[in-house]
This record gives sequence, C-alpha cells and structure tokens, in this order.
Amino acid sequence: MPDFKPRIVQLIPAWQWLKDYSSGKFKSDLLASLIVIAMLVPQGMAYAMLAGLPPIMGLYASMLPMIMYAILGGSTTLSIGPVAIISMMTFATLNPLFEAGSPVYIEAAMLLALMVGIISVLLGMLRFGFLIQLISHPVIKSFIIASALLIALGQLKFLVDVPLNGNSIPEFALSVWQYLSLTHAASLVFGIASILFLIYFPKLLNSQSVRSKIGSTNFIIKAVPLILVIISIALTVGLDLKEIGIKTVGEIPSGFPPVRIPHWNWDLVLKLMPGAAMIAMISFVESLSIAQATALQQRSNLNSNQELIALGIANISAGLTSAFPVTGSLSRTVVNADAGAKTPMAGVLSSILIVVVTLFFTGFFKDLPLVILAATIIVSIWKLVDFKPFIDTWRYSKADGIAMWVTFLGVLFIDISTGLIIGIISTFILMLWRISRPHMAVIGLVEGTQHFRNIQRHHVVTAPEILSIRIDENLTFLNANALKGFLINEISQHPQLQHVILNCSSVSSIDYSALEMLEDINNELSKLHIRLHFSEVKGPVMDKLQQSKLLKHLSGEIYLTHYKAIQSLSPKVFEYQI
Amino acid sequence: MPDFKPRIVQLIPAWQWLKDYSSGKFKSDLLASLIVIAMLVPQGMAYAMLAGLPPIMGLYASMLPMIMYAILGGSTTLSIGPVAIISMMTFATLNPLFEAGSPVYIEAAMLLALMVGIISVLLGMLRFGFLIQLISHPVIKSFIIASALLIALGQLKFLVDVPLNGNSIPEFALSVWQYLSLTHAASLVFGIASILFLIYFPKLLNSQSVRSKIGSTNFIIKAVPLILVIISIALTVGLDLKEIGIKTVGEIPSGFPPVRIPHWNWDLVLKLMPGAAMIAMISFVESLSIAQATALQQRSNLNSNQELIALGIANISAGLTSAFPVTGSLSRTVVNADAGAKTPMAGVLSSILIVVVTLFFTGFFKDLPLVILAATIIVSIWKLVDFKPFIDTWRYSKADGIAMWVTFLGVLFIDISTGLIIGIISTFILMLWRISRPHMAVIGLVEGTQHFRNIQRHHVVTAPEILSIRIDENLTFLNANALKGFLINEISQHPQLQHVILNCSSVSSIDYSALEMLEDINNELSKLHIRLHFSEVKGPVMDKLQQSKLLKHLSGEIYLTHYKAIQSLSPKVFEYQI
Repeated sequence: MPDFKPRIVQLIPAWQWLKDYSSGKFKSDLLASLIVIAMLVPQGMAYAMLAGLPPIMGLYASMLPMIMYAILGGSTTLSIGPVAIISMMTFATLNPLFEAGSPVYIEAAMLLALMVGIISVLLGMLRFGFLIQLISHPVIKSFIIASALLIALGQLKFLVDVPLNGNSIPEFALSVWQYLSLTHAASLVFGIASILFLIYFPKLLNSQSVRSKIGSTNFIIKAVPLILVIISIALTVGLDLKEIGIKTVGEIPSGFPPVRIPHWNWDLVLKLMPGAAMIAMISFVESLSIAQATALQQRSNLNSNQELIALGIANISAGLTSAFPVTGSLSRTVVNADAGAKTPMAGVLSSILIVVVTLFFTGFFKDLPLVILAATIIVSIWKLVDFKPFIDTWRYSKADGIAMWVTFLGVLFIDISTGLIIGIISTFILMLWRISRPHMAVIGLVEGTQHFRNIQRHHVVTAPEILSIRIDENLTFLNANALKGFLINEISQHPQLQHVILNCSSVSSIDYSALEMLEDINNELSKLHIRLHFSEVKGPVMDKLQQSKLLKHLSGEIYLTHYKAIQSLSPKVFEYQI
Repeated sequence: MPDFKPRIVQLIPAWQWLKDYSSGKFKSDLLASLIVIAMLVPQGMAYAMLAGLPPIMGLYASMLPMIMYAILGGSTTLSIGPVAIISMMTFATLNPLFEAGSPVYIEAAMLLALMVGIISVLLGMLRFGFLIQLISHPVIKSFIIASALLIALGQLKFLVDVPLNGNSIPEFALSVWQYLSLTHAASLVFGIASILFLIYFPKLLNSQSVRSKIGSTNFIIKAVPLILVIISIALTVGLDLKEIGIKTVGEIPSGFPPVRIPHWNWDLVLKLMPGAAMIAMISFVESLSIAQATALQQRSNLNSNQELIALGIANISAGLTSAFPVTGSLSRTVVNADAGAKTPMAGVLSSILIVVVTLFFTGFFKDLPLVILAATIIVSIWKLVDFKPFIDTWRYSKADGIAMWVTFLGVLFIDISTGLIIGIISTFILMLWRISRPHMAVIGLVEGTQHFRNIQRHHVVTAPEILSIRIDENLTFLNANALKGFLINEISQHPQLQHVILNCSSVSSIDYSALEMLEDINNELSKLHIRLHFSEVKGPVMDKLQQSKLLKHLSGEIYLTHYKAIQSLSPKVFEYQI
C-alpha cells in the first residue's frame, strides 16, 4: 500500500497539530478563545447589520467557517469570520438588487458566500493564487480608507434614525439634504454617548492611575464593546427606551443555523459574479497578509494556494449555514495571538462558544439598540481612516500615488466596486507604461577603471566607432519597440559607427517578441556594416538564446564583460586613457 | 517674434525634404511611383472587394491618405493605402451589421476610417503610442496567419461563384456543405488558370534562361498582376465571357472621390468602437514596423507618436474621401524603396497617378472579372500562411507559444476580433504569471573568488547564520508576495539564522507595494533578532529608497558588493575557504 500520509498531512495541516496536542495547550487555547469571543459577539452582529443582514447571521458566520479554516488553513492564530470591509462589499453587491434584510436578500447573501468560496477553491486548485494578487498595496489601502469613510457615513443613519444612503458621496449628500431635519434626537444622544464611551473608556482603563490600582486591564479593554452591549440592554429594558423610539435588534431565533444549499439561480449567479470575484480577491489579500505575518513570527511555512483553498472552503461552509462572506480578521487575530493561542484549536473553541451563545443567550440580545451596533462599527472603522499613506506613497512613487487617488475618488464618487476596478486598471496601465519605457543608457568607460557608467551622469571615455548601451529592464513585447526606437535615434547621430554593444547585465528575460526585434536589428545593422555585440548576458538568458536563430546569425560576439568587449573591439579607448 | 520654425519642422517632416528637393530626386521618385502604381491598381481594387466594398474605393483609399502621410510621416518610402489584413478586419467589423456593398455599409466603412483616424491621432497626441503596442509579435504573427487563411477561404466564393461564408472555420464548413455542389465551372477554371499564371509566370520571368535573353525582368514581375488584369479584360470582352456567367466589376464611376463627412451616428459609433480600436492597433503596429525598418536603413530618426498622428490623419482623410481604413503596405513599401524612391514625393506622385487612372481609365476596368481580383488576393495572401513561426516560437518560449495557439484557434474558430482579443489577454496573463513568479536564488560564495552563485547549481560556501538571496526581477506588487513567501519558507528551514542579505544587482525598480513588503519583512525579522541587509543596490533604486522609511528603520546595512557584506558579517566563511 502506498503511503498517503505525507500527502494528507500536506492537504490537511490539522493532522500536524492534533498529533501532539496536550492539556497545557488546551488551557491556553481556551483562554484565548474566551477573549476573542468577547470581541466577536458584538462585532459579528454589527458586521451582519453592516451587510444589511439580521444580526444573528454574524454569529452564524463565526461558527463553521472558523472550524473549516482550523482544519485546512496554515496559520495557527488566524481568526476567520465577518469583517467590516467584506460586509460592506456584500452590501454594495446585494443592495442594488434586493431590499436589504428581505428573504431574497438573505438568500442572495448565502449564494454570494458560496460563490466566493467556489471561486477561491477553484483558483487555489488551479494554482492561480497569483491572479488574485493583482491589487497593489496602495490601491488596497486607498480602497480600505475610502470604504471605511463610506461605512462610517453609512452608519450615521442609525444614529439619526432617518434613511441616509451611504453608497457614494453624491448619494449621501443628497439624502442628508432631504432627511437630516427629521433626525431622531434620542437615538442621536444615545449614539454619541456610546461612541464617546467606546473611545474614552479604554483610554481610561489604559491610564497609569487605573493600571496601578487594578493591574493589567488588557482583557477588560477587549471586552469594552461587550460591556457597552450589556449596559445598553440594561438601560433599554430598565428605562423602557423603546417607548421613546429607540430601535432594537428584536427577536433573534435561537439554536443552530439552518443548514441548506442556497437556491442556485444562474441569472442571479451571473449578476453576482463581478461582486463575488472582487470579494474573493479582497478577502484573500486580507487573509493572506495576516496569515503571513503570523507565519513569519512562528517561523512556520505557508502555501498561498492552500490558504486560498482553506478560505474558499470556509466561505462555502458559510454559504451552507445561512451566513455570508467571511475572511480573516486582523483585530481578532492579533487578540487571539496576544492572548496566547497555541493552536488552531483556539478557533474551534471560539466557534463552540458562539454556538453556546446562540443556543442560550439570543433572548438576551433582543433589546440591544441598533444604534449601539452602529457606534461599534463607527469606532472600529474610524481608526482605518488615515491620510498619511497618501502622502507617503505619493512621495515615493508618482505612479502608485496616482493609482491611489484614482481608487479613492472612484470609491467615494462612483461606487465601491467601480472604484476598486478602475484603481486596479490604473495600476496596470501605469505598470505597462513603465515597462514600455525601459531605462536605457549610453555608457562609457570610467577612466582608470573597468567600470562603465551613463555618459550623461558621469565623465567617461567613449570611441566614435562604438556605441555601448545598457538596458535596465527585461526585454518584452512591451518595450521591444522602445529599444529599437532608441537604437534608431542613436545610430542616426553616430555616422562613424561600426559596433553596437548591448550590455545585458540587468536583463533577466527576453521574450519572443524582443528576440525577433534583436534579430531584426542584427539584420538591419549588418546591411549598414555595423556589428551587433552583447556583453554580460546572464546564464538563464544565454541558455534560451542558444536555442534561437539570433546567435547563429549574430554579426558580432558575446563578451563575458563589457570591458573585454571594448578591449577587443577598440584598443584605442585605452590609448585615450594613457 | 519667436522662432516657430524648429517646432514646425518637427511637426511636419515634409519641410525637411522639400527644402532641398531637386530634379534628380524627382526623376527617381517618378520612376518608383510608376512601378508602385502597377501593383497598386489591382491590389487596391482587390482589397476593396475583400472589405466588401466597390473596387473603386480601393483607388480612393490610395489618393489623399498617401499625400497626408507624405507630408506628416517620418518614413521616406512607406507606402500607405489599402492592405489585406485591414480590409479583412473592416469586413469582419461591418459585415455583422449591414449587407456588404450596400449604401449604409459604405457609409459605415467611411465612418470606421474616420474613427480609426481619430483614435490614432488622440493616442498620438496624448503620447499614448505605447498603449497601442500591447500586442506581442507571436500574437500578431498568429493573427495574420489565421486571418490570411480565412481571407483565402473567403475568396473561394468568387472562384466557385456560390455564397461560401468565410468568417470562421465552422461557418465556412457549413456553407461548403450547403453550396459546393452548385459550383460554377467556368469561373472555377478561369480562377485556377489565373492563380497558376500569378504563381508561375513570375517564376518563368525570373529564370536564368529568360533573364539571359531580355535582361532584368524585375519591373515586369511587379506588373504581372496588372498584365493579368489586362489579358483577362481582353479575353472577357473578346470571347464575351459574361454570356457564360463570368461576373465582372461592372460600371465604375470616374473622377475624384466624393468628399464629405460620413454621417456621425453615436449608436453606430459605439458599435464600431471595438473594431475601430483593433484596426487602429493593428494598422499602427504594421505601419510602424515597416517604417522602422526603412528608417534604420536610411539612418533617419523616427518618433512613434508622430507616426501614430500621421497614420491617424491619413485615415481621417480616407474617411472624408469615400475610402476605408488604410495603413502601410509592406509589399508596396519594399517595391518603392527598391525602385529607388528618394523622398516621400514618390508617394505623392503615386497618388496623382491614381487620380489620373480614376479620371480616364475606369471604363476600362468594367469588364474585369471578379474572379481575377480573388485570384490576386489568394496568391498574395497565401505567402503569409506559414507554420514555421509556430514551431520556432514554441521552442523558444512556451508562454509565447501558448499565446500564439490561443490566437490562431480563436481567429479560426470564433472570429477574427475575438481571436485577437483573447490572444492579447492570454499574453498579459502569461506575462503577469511570469512576473509574479520571479526567479530567486539562495546564493553562496564560489571558493577562491569574490563571486556568488546559486547554491543549487554550483558548489559554493555558505554560513548557517547567513541567508543570501538574489532576486532576478524588478520588485512590484505582482511579486512582492512571492518574495515574502520564499523568505518565510527559507527562514523556517534555517534555525540558526542571524542575517538575511538581499542581493539587488538585478533589481531596477521597487514599487510602493514591494517597498512596504520589505518594511514588513524588516519589522518581522527584527522581532526574531534577524537583521536584514541589502547588497549591490543600483543608483536609481537607492535614490528612491533614500526617501523611504525602509532605510531609516533597517536593522542591517547596505553593502556595495555582496562580498563585502559576507566579509563583514561572517569572517568565518573565509576560514572555511582556507
């Protein structure tokens, strides 16, 4: 019988850590899971609301997906579940099609999670994980900042209790103009008080004076949103705030989530496809970067295609258990790691605790005011709104800076998906533009050395019969023409030319278009009795050139170093030096 | 008054050559134009027919566009006018919308030329010429070969005189099945005889025995299609071939082309847009590569954006003078240059001669059988059908080979535009795939030298506390993650690690995503007490890094050479060497 075990261990990383699991590890994992759960309950309900869904679905989204990732994923501490950006994207995808919260909307959210999962699993199995990394950091950052702004604006409707629309700045401005005068004062006061509590209570707990009295307050700080939830429920019930118009979560069904396959409607699937593809992309990017950071800290290995499959199966399980798209949460992962989680069992324990909550405590949440969840979202999301990245990026690279602004303005003024797409497209156009204008320099010999430098930057020696060109980019169809154009212009200015030497020290690949261009140049130069030479060609490039016609018909030579080329072609240059 | 002259000379290259024009040059140009015209008259009419248009439009397309390019273009000998591929693309764009040859079809062809012209001029003025070079050589070649096959198949309908459809292989096969039994025998005999004449008469003229009797036959060879035209008209009239069902060109209006702006219908413009964009792209690629070859031979300068504008204005003038999209013709340009054309005046003279033909000789062509034009197209296009490029490309580069086959099959089995588009897309996906998997190597010191080589390829010395990595690609958002993944895996295998040195000798640029990734790695490694160093960073890359946070927080050093890095970090390696 062949030994399948290594293969299984590779596919299911859980084998590895389950093998030597111990009661010591269990204690650490249980403690971490308790701390995570204190964050997860209010966050889960708030993010479900953000996605336009009943709060209970946020708890469903934290059950099976977390267990699936614990079995299949490569990161020890990654906490999978509802996340603000993904919830926002879910809302942006579904809201134009159905009324938020309606049964068809809920069905579509489940279908969306299933689609995100299938896309991820397929891409992972085809080893197309690289395709999903097409978004540059500046575009993602800008996308997240702009989305955070929209999320925060979108939550204002719960604070003022009038239907403000937050899908884009123009829409929002219009609805503020229409409705703001109808603001519900009691909700607004309650909301602002909650926001202040969420911001200043942790600061108070973190202050020297408090710490010196009651010791470490780290756990209590993580539980502040849960404390707010408990206080606000007590206030709502005690003072009968529903009487003065404070809206609450309402009845929440208790027990396990309904398990079933969402209705697969091809028309709807096609409509959801662009949204699903983008959610798959963003959720993978987010999840992978968190997993990589933790993998590096634990010096453990990580396979990105395997991660994609694990995340995909987590989303499929979300789609089958009445939940919505999920990904890795940065805040909960950090808390999980800090709290001492030793294995993915911490995630499994969190899921079990969430099940306990939905079995026994849902009745408790029915009097939770919606404005509290909105305040939780606003405070947690507002930290993401930061304009320093725009300045830093612009300073380092104009191209990245432009892509960033394009994304930002696109998200705010058109809509979240269009903004992301035009951001991605602009990155590619700018990258193609850069590749198509490779840096090329005419180089000459630095007197008294064997080094060659740009004749425009340095004082160097050249010979009128030799043209030395250094190409600082891989040669592809995108820049083959630029090189040819550069050569045509240089040759038109050097009437005495007999030799052209291309220094390829920075060329790591030459595609077929560039190869043909070099063959063309070689032929054309031959007719003018100018010989074409190469210097400092790298091993792998040389291996490929060996199989081509170029070397067979090359009018000149290939030199190991540029110095040797000049030495053999124009000893005169050395005379100048003496 | 400021001196505008240099600016004008730059914008209108004609200033340059008109300044020192002479009667000697005029004689050369006139002779060349006579030879070109002998080719152009039958080709022009044939390619108009190929585009589904009345033959006269092929002559119109050779008038004003040629003059406009002579004034604005940078190439001395480039011959602008109707070209087979562009005519085929015109047919493929218009045929699904209107009945070929109908008044609306003709109007749309003019509009298409106008649109191609406007697109080209805009891209040229915005210096977006690079965007139009997005098609790799293998894709273009495959596109041309597949289109040539379709063009040849499409002309068979004139040989057999039944309505065979040649838009794709499946469509063609279906119509052969339906109609082939209705073949018109006389047309077929006439057609095959013409094809044999066009293939073997030039060979006969070129043979030693004929040359030795009547001297150089080069000019007669170029005029063979014109000779066939004259003979076939004589035969048709003399033997009254129309009686037995041979179809002819019919009445051709004489005189100047009607000059007017085609009706600008926004609905139609939107429908034609994809076709117009692709025609603009292919016509520019074709024209530029011909112009570049001639520019190199004449050691003259060439600006690709200026060429794009010149080609655009040529197409606009085609749209305004009842013609259809045009570009540079390789065959006529070569003939023009070989015949001794000295300046673009040769092109101007060709246009004038074409005007003379349309003024006085159109009556002559009314009895020209259509099957002769079809034979001309088949013979001239069949030379393009060559499968060797598929083998050569595949051997050199699998990625380029795949893109080539995708294009080929797409053109033949879907349609010409879709084939080109999926070909272009496949090139990009394959390029992104390559960039996203940069070649990275762990390197070690070659004993007794200062050189570092891949530890998997060479016998080298390494130290357990140092990891040296060489990156053979520019760092961008597409491969930042791959480098991080590579590092994570390497670090997990080196428990004693204290130093990571990244050798950047092949890195010519680092975008902002990659910069952040390096910052991340630096931070994460610091926590593990591993220092990050760089070696052999290029000048321009260093200039940019100076402005970043990376250098400020870098745990390690930047070394000029990798050898110096190892020398200072691990003198032990040198002990091993002794």
